[in-house]
Order: sequence, then structure tokens, then C-alpha cells
Amino acid sequence: MIYLDNSATTRVCPEAAAAVLDAMTTQFGNPSSLHTLGFAAAQLLAGARRAVARALGAPPETVTFTSGGTEANNLALFGAAAARRKEGRRIVTSMAEHPSVLRVMDELEREGWEVARLRPDRQGRLSPEQVEEAVTPDTALVSLMLVNNETGAVFPVEAAARALRRQNPRGLLHVDAVQAFGKLPLRPAALGAHLVTVSAHKIHGPKGVGALYCAPGVRIPPRTFGGGQERGLRPGTEGVPLIAGFGAAVQALPDLPAALERQRALNRLCREGLRELPGVTVHSPEDGLPYLLNFSAGDVRAETMLHFLAAREIYLSSGSACSRAQPSHVLTAMGLPANEVQSALRVSFSRETTEEDVRRFLEALGEGLQTLARRPARGAGMRRRSI
Amino acid sequence: MIYLDNSATTRVCPEAAAAVLDAMTTQFGNPSSLHTLGFAAAQLLAGARRAVARALGAPPETVTFTSGGTEANNLALFGAAAARRKEGRRIVTSMAEHPSVLRVMDELEREGWEVARLRPDRQGRLSPEQVEEAVTPDTALVSLMLVNNETGAVFPVEAAARALRRQNPRGLLHVDAVQAFGKLPLRPAALGAHLVTVSAHKIHGPKGVGALYCAPGVRIPPRTFGGGQERGLRPGTEGVPLIAGFGAAVQALPDLPAALERQRALNRLCREGLRELPGVTVHSPEDGLPYLLNFSAGDVRAETMLHFLAAREIYLSSGSACSRAQPSHVLTAMGLPANEVQSALRVSFSRETTEEDVRRFLEALGEGLQTLARRPARGAGMRRRSI
Repeated sequence: MIYLDNSATTRVCPEAAAAVLDAMTTQFGNPSSLHTLGFAAAQLLAGARRAVARALGAPPETVTFTSGGTEANNLALFGAAAARRKEGRRIVTSMAEHPSVLRVMDELEREGWEVARLRPDRQGRLSPEQVEEAVTPDTALVSLMLVNNETGAVFPVEAAARALRRQNPRGLLHVDAVQAFGKLPLRPAALGAHLVTVSAHKIHGPKGVGALYCAPGVRIPPRTFGGGQERGLRPGTEGVPLIAGFGAAVQALPDLPAALERQRALNRLCREGLRELPGVTVHSPEDGLPYLLNFSAGDVRAETMLHFLAAREIYLSSGSACSRAQPSHVLTAMGLPANEVQSALRVSFSRETTEEDVRRFLEALGEGLQTLARRPARGAGMRRRSI
Repeated sequence: MIYLDNSATTRVCPEAAAAVLDAMTTQFGNPSSLHTLGFAAAQLLAGARRAVARALGAPPETVTFTSGGTEANNLALFGAAAARRKEGRRIVTSMAEHPSVLRVMDELEREGWEVARLRPDRQGRLSPEQVEEAVTPDTALVSLMLVNNETGAVFPVEAAARALRRQNPRGLLHVDAVQAFGKLPLRPAALGAHLVTVSAHKIHGPKGVGALYCAPGVRIPPRTFGGGQERGLRPGTEGVPLIAGFGAAVQALPDLPAALERQRALNRLCREGLRELPGVTVHSPEDGLPYLLNFSAGDVRAETMLHFLAAREIYLSSGSACSRAQPSHVLTAMGLPANEVQSALRVSFSRETTEEDVRRFLEALGEGLQTLARRPARGAGMRRRSI
């Protein structure tokens, strides 16, 4: 099996799996319980919080655990909008955000906010100037991904921070860093971000857990009400097993610069191979996160090619956020022609990916193009959801 | 170790632990991915949903997975209030609900709802008449626990369903069944409940996952927005490992009537033993769920007794929802004198509990009463949170 869908989700690493198992069967107390087992569970929680905080260069109390990136994005955006209601009427974001940001923006718009959605260029990038221009004195909130999940484009969040500081120092900057965390060095304080979303399952931690960084001094209201856990911002008995697994996955992260260098080599190898194939167009920018690569496979519909590759145990994804046969909102916003959007594929690497994996993928893709090109497209539609 | 805090949380059973591990390391795909690994993960999800649905005697599509009971209660109550805004201005609940219900009621009150909070009697019970009387033609929502988490009292939810049908057939009934699920036979359709909250970690499943049953035909709006998972009611990449663990825990449940019979014997043994100890008062009603028992240990503060027992590796909890040294809201609502509230303890059994465990607990409690009674109370306050 060659698994090249690591931006969708990753295999849980042994360290994280062991931590989850231990928290389920040995240290299984409720962290709120007033006895040894409860205290042990509270320790696991504290240790995981320290690990995630350290990876962000931040104090532990800035980290609130959630059930994943979607919940963290919702908490951050609804919370920031409520907390900064009096500081402006405008929110700036991009057309290329994850649905858990875009759908919340639709809700906020319904509540009366004016939402500016910036359009990425043909390679999925936003320019610093574009962001700076969009941030006005009545901008109360900016929300941008650090790394786009379909193209790998790195968005200019520092420019957003600078613009906010200049135009509206009370405004808040939210950064969805789900695809960046554990891959790019990430220091919210240095970035100037007030709220940062991270997730475990993109970095070999388990699905079902994420966290929201909330800068010291920034207060947002909760979305959930209950027993007061997570300092009241996210109540409910803490999911200790997954949280412990998240902490262990963070601690097992390799040296980021060295890992990035390795990914650059894989990315280069893949780009060179793709260039030699007929009708393939790469969409990802050269200066994007090297862990992923978006491209169109000639005229072959993405779903058809995915089936062909899956039959050879090579797993990747369509580059698109297909929602009831709708093409990717990211690639569409980039202005790509419909046929390129419909044939878009995304490969995404992890630290487990080898050069041999990439070579075998390129070989199979080449065969696929020969076999499938110019045949009529099969199947009615693509499946929903970006992941 | 004698673990008698199973209403707080339980040890994850081997079947559930194995399912979690498998979903993390082997079937680790994203259920939304269009390839074999994704389909396998979607199968795990579907299997778990069928298992939970079967335990509720309901079709799988009525089950929405959440991060636990607190999220399910929030989703149900905010959702029901929004969906039934035009059907009335009144909500009926009790003073003995979990904080994840009570705090939401406070929010709904702020939004303009009139909330009637029924007071339990001295044994923690609500009478059917009391509930029927409270439900008026403009009652849009009733929310009651099936089993109270501090006393084990079983609340008359059928009476609430009958009253709603008579007074306001468009009204919704929500039942927080976190302490009942897997212990009492539970058929939402037969109960007349429209929304039912259940949780995994009280039945030897992992912490961090629960579910909301939503009756066929009942539509409530989501609290979270994103990629459309869980039919849009609860988006976010599904926490497949925990959900698979939840399904396995449900499938590993013993025959409920037989398990109940065993618990009744443990409960009887415990009650008889407590009766022989000086100054002990049992608060739990005779007809409550036998899995738990709330009592006051003379004049010894709960925290002091917990420390004494923990030193002997016997783990239970204070009976109270201590919030910044506030005494239990349940026992206070029951009208118990302050000293009984402050010395309240809760033992809670599981299928792992033996008669020998109960005997050794009673022996240690007896010693504790001899050693600690009449000494001045130590420590300033109790810790927050009911669990």
C-alpha cells in the first residue's frame, strides 16, 4: 500500500497509540475525580497540554482541547465575533478556507457582519498587499489559514497581523493552522495571531481531538455550557485518551527543519515526474508547503483516476471539496478551467513517505493516463466534503 | 484497588480498547476519503452507529455522534429551543439536572425563555404529578434526566411525554440518559422522547465520545458548521477510533436484566452495611438505579473521608457537584441539611464490582468513621464540578 493522502488524515504513530491505550485501560480516571486515579488522569491532561503549548512556544494555559479542527474553528470565530462586536462590523477571510471557517462566515453574515472573502491567485496564493488592503479600521476579525489544505499555499498571516495592528489594534486574528502545525515552525505570538486552530490527526495523532490556542489576555465566550472543564471555555469530561495521544504525537514530531528538507526532496521528485507526463498541470505554488501537491491529470476525471490508483493500492484524494458533485471551491476560486478542476488530484506526504512511494505513484499515474485518457468520463458525480 | 466511582467514569473494556487501537493504526483512513482506507473507516463508523442504534431500538440514522454527553445535551437543547421557538415560551426541567443542562437553561432564559425548574423530594425523586402539572400548553420543551447522577433517582419521563402530548403535541422531550444507557432498558420511541443523550465512558467505552438520538422526523439546527459530516448536524472529521470504541463497548454490554439483578444485590449489601454504621444516612431512593448509592458519612467532611479511603486504595466520590466550595446543587435542592450535604459520598458500581469490594469498602468506611468523626474538618473547600 502507498498512502499519499496524509493531508486527509495520517496513521497514528506508535507513541500516540500507546498513550491512548494507557489512558483507556490503566489511567482511566476522570480528571475531575478527587482521588488518585483522577489525579493521574489530570496529570496526563496537563502533560499533553504542556506538549502542545511547547510546540506553539506558548504557556500551557493558552491551550484548550476540543474535539478537532472544526470545533476549534467554530469556537474561535463565533467567540471572536461575539467578543469584538463593538470593535467593527467587518470580517476578512479568504475564499480558500476550510468549510468549518466558510460556513461559520455565512452564519456571521446572517447575523449582520460584513464578510470580505479574498480570492487566491492562479496558484492558490494571497498576496500581502491584498490582505493589507482588505483590512480596514472597522475590521474586527481576520481569519486566514496558514497553509491551504488543497494546494499547500502559505497565506500571509503576518501581513494580516501588521494590518490589524495598524488599522484596528483591538481586532483579532484567527489562524487555521491545521495543515501547518507540526510541519512549519509555528509561534502564534511571533505571528501576531490571537487564536490558532490545530489538530492531532494530521500529525499522526488520533482523529477526534484538536486544540484552540487563545493568546494571553484574549477572552472569548464558550459555545458549550456545562461542568466548567477547560476553564469553562470547552466543558465536558475531557477526552483524556485522545488528548494524551495528541500530546504523545506532538512529542514524537521530528525536527521540523530536517523534516521539511526531506519533504522538499519528495516534492521535487514528484514535480519532476509530473512534468514528464502528458497533459498534467501542477496547481500548487512552488513556495508552498512541500508536504502536498495538487495537479490535474489531463482530461481524466479525478474519481476515475482515484479508482484506477486504488486498484493498485495507491491512495490519494481528489483535490476538491466535492459537495454534491460541486467542484472544489478552492480551485474554482483560483480561476482554473472546469476540466482542470474536475481532474484535480492531491498527493500528500508524511514522514513515512519514501522516494520509492513517489516513484511507484508516478509510474501508476502514467499508466493511468495512458489507459484512461480520452475515454468518456464515468460516473455521475464526485463525493462531498473537503478533508 | 477498589474502584467505586463508576458513575464518574469507567475502565475501558478490552473489546472497546481493541477497536480504538485498530481504528488508529490499521483502519486509519478518513471516512470521507474516496479510497479503500476511507471506505473501511466509513464502515467502522456505520457499524458503531448500528450498535448504538440497536441498543436504543432505533434506526441508525437517528444516531449522531458527538464528543460526549455535554456536547449532546447542548446540541439537543439549543437545537430544540431554536426548532420550537414558535410553539411556546416555556421550558420545563428539574433542579437536579447535570450542569450541561442547567447552564444551557440559564442561557436560554437569557434569550427570553421561561424556565421552570422542578424541585426533587428528600430522596431525589420527581413525582409524575409534579411533572404533569408543570407542562402547560405553551411548553415547547421538557428536559429531564432518566437517572440522576448523584442519587440514582429515576425521573418520570413517560409522564412528561404524556403531558406534552396532551398539552402541546408539537413540544419536544429531551432525555439526558447518560447514567441510564446500558443499565436500564431504554427505548426512546416507547418513552416518547424526541432527543436522547448517551455517552460511552459510563459503560466501559472511552471518554470523549457520546451520541444524540434524534427521533425520525424531528429536525434541529446544528451548533457547529463545517464539512457536512453527521448529516450536517455535527460536522468535523469523525473521531473514528473513539466511535468504534463506543460501538464495541455497546456490543460488549451484558444482558441488562441480569446485570440489574446483580447490581440490586450489591446495592442491598451496601445499604445493609451502611445501616449498621453510626451516623450514616442514605439519600438515594429505594427505587433508584441500583448502580449507585448516595449517603452521608456522619459529620466527616466528604473530602476528608475520600482522602482516608484513597489512602487504602478505595476510590469513590463526594456526592456533590462542588463548584468553588459550593455544595451539591442536587442534594441542596432535595432540602438536606448543610452538614449532610457536606459529608455526602457516592459509591457507584460497575459490572466489575464484586461483593468483596463492597464489604471491604464498608469495613474501611467504618474505620474512617471511628478515626475521623468529631475531629475538626480539614481543608478549606471541595473541588468543583459534578461528573
